[in-house]
Amino acid sequence: MTPPRAGEFDLIARYFAPLARGGRLSAFDLRDDAASLEPRAGHDLVFTADALVADVHFFATDPPDLIARKALRTNLSDLAAKGAHPIGYLLCLALPKAIDEPWIAGFARGLKEDQALFGLALAGGDTTSTPGSLVVAMTAIGEVSTGRMLRRAGAAIGDDIWVSGTIGDGALGLLAARGELDIQDSALAALVDRYRLPRPRLDLGMALAPLGVVAMDVSDGLFQDLGHIIQLAAAGAVIDEASIPLSPAARTALAHRPGLIETIVTGGDDYELLIVAPPTLSRALASAADATRTALTRIGRIVAGDAVQLRGADGQLRRFTKGGWTHF
Amino acid sequence: MTPPRAGEFDLIARYFAPLARGGRLSAFDLRDDAASLEPRAGHDLVFTADALVADVHFFATDPPDLIARKALRTNLSDLAAKGAHPIGYLLCLALPKAIDEPWIAGFARGLKEDQALFGLALAGGDTTSTPGSLVVAMTAIGEVSTGRMLRRAGAAIGDDIWVSGTIGDGALGLLAARGELDIQDSALAALVDRYRLPRPRLDLGMALAPLGVVAMDVSDGLFQDLGHIIQLAAAGAVIDEASIPLSPAARTALAHRPGLIETIVTGGDDYELLIVAPPTLSRALASAADATRTALTRIGRIVAGDAVQLRGADGQLRRFTKGGWTHF
Repeated sequence: MTPPRAGEFDLIARYFAPLARGGRLSAFDLRDDAASLEPRAGHDLVFTADALVADVHFFATDPPDLIARKALRTNLSDLAAKGAHPIGYLLCLALPKAIDEPWIAGFARGLKEDQALFGLALAGGDTTSTPGSLVVAMTAIGEVSTGRMLRRAGAAIGDDIWVSGTIGDGALGLLAARGELDIQDSALAALVDRYRLPRPRLDLGMALAPLGVVAMDVSDGLFQDLGHIIQLAAAGAVIDEASIPLSPAARTALAHRPGLIETIVTGGDDYELLIVAPPTLSRALASAADATRTALTRIGRIVAGDAVQLRGADGQLRRFTKGGWTHF
Repeated sequence: MTPPRAGEFDLIARYFAPLARGGRLSAFDLRDDAASLEPRAGHDLVFTADALVADVHFFATDPPDLIARKALRTNLSDLAAKGAHPIGYLLCLALPKAIDEPWIAGFARGLKEDQALFGLALAGGDTTSTPGSLVVAMTAIGEVSTGRMLRRAGAAIGDDIWVSGTIGDGALGLLAARGELDIQDSALAALVDRYRLPRPRLDLGMALAPLGVVAMDVSDGLFQDLGHIIQLAAAGAVIDEASIPLSPAARTALAHRPGLIETIVTGGDDYELLIVAPPTLSRALASAADATRTALTRIGRIVAGDAVQLRGADGQLRRFTKGGWTHF
């Protein structure tokens, strides 16, 4: 039997108030209606919000610390894409009755761990019960030099397209977690880990902010997300299949089943940075990648057109639509 | 049959992007990962988050524009209590499949109406599906002069306790909506309206900010909320029953059933301001109330002790605990 949970105020005092200490925001141990922040001169604030729902964005049975960290990291990934330095976040939790106190303790432990890792603190929020599914809704607050927030808009024909890290691990990790990938256990584990625990590219994003490149994070899938950039630019894009950076586990999976390339370029949960910049910035980008010890790979180019196309090893262009691949 | 909803991006472009225009925040038509804000010199930012869940905080069958407005107003009420000027908000929506496009159109219409009324704009957010209940999670952003955010902490023995407007209508409105109040229809309608549509006291809050009074909003019930203030002050409070401001509808209900006084002082959803200030500030408080055409009533005093007590017409003190009233 599930032991009854403590009341809302006790839970907040016990598990969440300790997370609200030591940050830039004054959160008053979560014992007030709101938190306050004295902005720093010469800086803009950056805001983003993302919600995760049980059995939509994670498995309800996932360890609570990983759920917490995934929620925080998906928001931090948006700050990374904007070149922002994270300073705090607000958390709304809708908790089903079955959630017990050890679960909440685990959830708070995950937040604590990632707060230390990424240098931010809880600034407020709300916990409530729900007759439905667990919902974790967060707003993250970051800071950039005035006017320096990186944007999705501004790509131009001839610009290079870059991505950080490796692509496809998150989506393959979801397949792996569902038992739908038949590869060796160590590769499976690596992919599931990437699905469960994104790595927001905050250091790289902050290093890119002075360059004014076009940037966004890859959360809905490389092709869909690049689609937003080309739509704003009224242009197209060609991606070289051979240049897409893959992890060893993803290479193994793809070697077993070549059709997985579609999952790799259209699946979500990469949380890598997608960067578009003129070739004149290549050296500066390489320096930013070096300085932050982040892999950065050129994967294609902005071209005239209105679609994202994939150039295979045979030189043929393919275009992915909801109905599948279209060949040209 | 419910017609299928448009995709997430279409819904955002159609219903939410128009809400993100014209505010202090740059939200880029919600077509970027984040919004940015250039803070104003001499001001702090104020952040608060509140989530509403269907069939916990509102009836799932309530009109969608009222659900939207209640969600926004509960957050604005927190900003009001801190003396803050609202500037923007972020919205996370977890939508069950049964929610159709007309519902979303109504929800957005409610937000639009209240944005115009209270002078703020949408700055970002997330819409996602849920297999569970509808959740509306919001983070509101406000602004106060540097160091001027009103606080719950700082009450002192001898201070007066004030409330804005009338107390108890929200909780009586919930009873009324459930068919548990037997009074005439016009009174019922007035109470249900107060339950469904809080009136955040933003003008009063902003007028109070320069006075540095202790303030919070009454959302969980007058006695519980005053309990937070006295706990931070290590003091007690005595409230005069006869001085609690009641609406005509609440007076009618109380005359029919005197036991409702408990609902009135411990029920939630008032969204009035609870203010604690030394008697020397009485004239300044009255001026702020006059200037903002808000009723403000002195209902009691901070005393030595550790509890909130109610003084009845007979002069007897009662203390409310979870088990009921205790007489002294």
